[in-house]
Amino acid sequence: MQLFNNINEDVYRAYVFWSSVLVVKMLVMSILTGMQRFRKKAFVNPEDIATQPKLKIKTDDPDVERVRRAHLNDLENILPFFVIGFFYILSNPNPFIAVNLFRAVAVSRIAHTLVYAVVVIPQPARAIAWLIPYASSFYMAFNTILHFL
Amino acid sequence: MQLFNNINEDVYRAYVFWSSVLVVKMLVMSILTGMQRFRKKAFVNPEDIATQPKLKIKTDDPDVERVRRAHLNDLENILPFFVIGFFYILSNPNPFIAVNLFRAVAVSRIAHTLVYAVVVIPQPARAIAWLIPYASSFYMAFNTILHFL
Amino acid sequence: MQLFNNINEDVYRAYVFWSSVLVVKMLVMSILTGMQRFRKKAFVNPEDIATQPKLKIKTDDPDVERVRRAHLNDLENILPFFVIGFFYILSNPNPFIAVNLFRAVAVSRIAHTLVYAVVVIPQPARAIAWLIPYASSFYMAFNTILHFL
Repeated sequence: MQLFNNINEDVYRAYVFWSSVLVVKMLVMSILTGMQRFRKKAFVNPEDIATQPKLKIKTDDPDVERVRRAHLNDLENILPFFVIGFFYILSNPNPFIAVNLFRAVAVSRIAHTLVYAVVVIPQPARAIAWLIPYASSFYMAFNTILHFL
Repeated sequence: MQLFNNINEDVYRAYVFWSSVLVVKMLVMSILTGMQRFRKKAFVNPEDIATQPKLKIKTDDPDVERVRRAHLNDLENILPFFVIGFFYILSNPNPFIAVNLFRAVAVSRIAHTLVYAVVVIPQPARAIAWLIPYASSFYMAFNTILHFL
Repeated sequence: MQLFNNINEDVYRAYVFWSSVLVVKMLVMSILTGMQRFRKKAFVNPEDIATQPKLKIKTDDPDVERVRRAHLNDLENILPFFVIGFFYILSNPNPFIAVNLFRAVAVSRIAHTLVYAVVVIPQPARAIAWLIPYASSFYMAFNTILHFL
């Protein structure tokens, strides 16, 4: 079979572009965590503070933990999106819907990080920024399942 | 090169179908976690309880932590399966073996969640439900590595 | 469109081979965690110690936690690499650079696990082993974004 011959090029390009943006966004989480660790002097490995005998291991700093929760939330939501977004393309979706779903997921997940781990904004800011990509992934998953049933 | 021209269509469809089912299964973990957080009033962010001054942050509720461990176990096992299952297809596997491996992985991972985070069943229920997809992923990885060596 | 017709076969084979090696490396983390749990008798689920009434739940063993941190670091770094490495191939990269990036990522991530969770080696061993794949993923992401802009 010729697997990818019927793919819409706009959909494919939008998927790769926005997914790559989200990879960068996820990688930035490590920098945010590192910044909080240095700022709060909250290091978790003895070898990381070997040259600073005054420091102690600190595993419960609230600012560090907040960034780590945002990062874990990325793993739980963005990584499955990469997979289901790819499968969704293979189900020949409506190009207009597909391209805008990818945009919505990417913009919402960037907003999620901003309101969760950069500047804390009252709820339901984070709930909404989480729900849009979550519902989008569900929609893509159900469409893919029905197509490949 | 024409990358995907030799793929067996049954294998490809089984992979996309069962992987999409597993994406849905992973997404459901967030609902399970949220249900336990509301049931046990165990919230971890100050902004999540801003309107309920009587509540306090609670990070160690055993029922919430159990669902979170099941979710993390999904990240550790299902996400690598998505990757190695895709590579395995590219190694032109025996279709009968491949389709049934995908089924076994999906059914076992659903069972894993049920016995770990929904109704706790004594060991070795969870160990077996974990081992089948784990061994399957190893098998797929070794076959892929030998094929692409 | 014919999506994968222009892919360089050497780049494609190097990506699948080294990524499969990294899948095996990630799967091995579960064995390392299990070994530490049995060695230190640090189990986290009541059903796991049901037949050993003398044991208690133990969630803070430093050796177990160290392996778990290394595993989580894999999820944060290797899983996004699988995604961005695949997209990077689609951007028609220079084959020599691409093949050697994939090699560098795989070898560095294996080294990261060794110096973090097997034999603890003073910093900056772990920092360097982390930085090489991290910077490589960033490079691949920026190239992909520019190509698909």
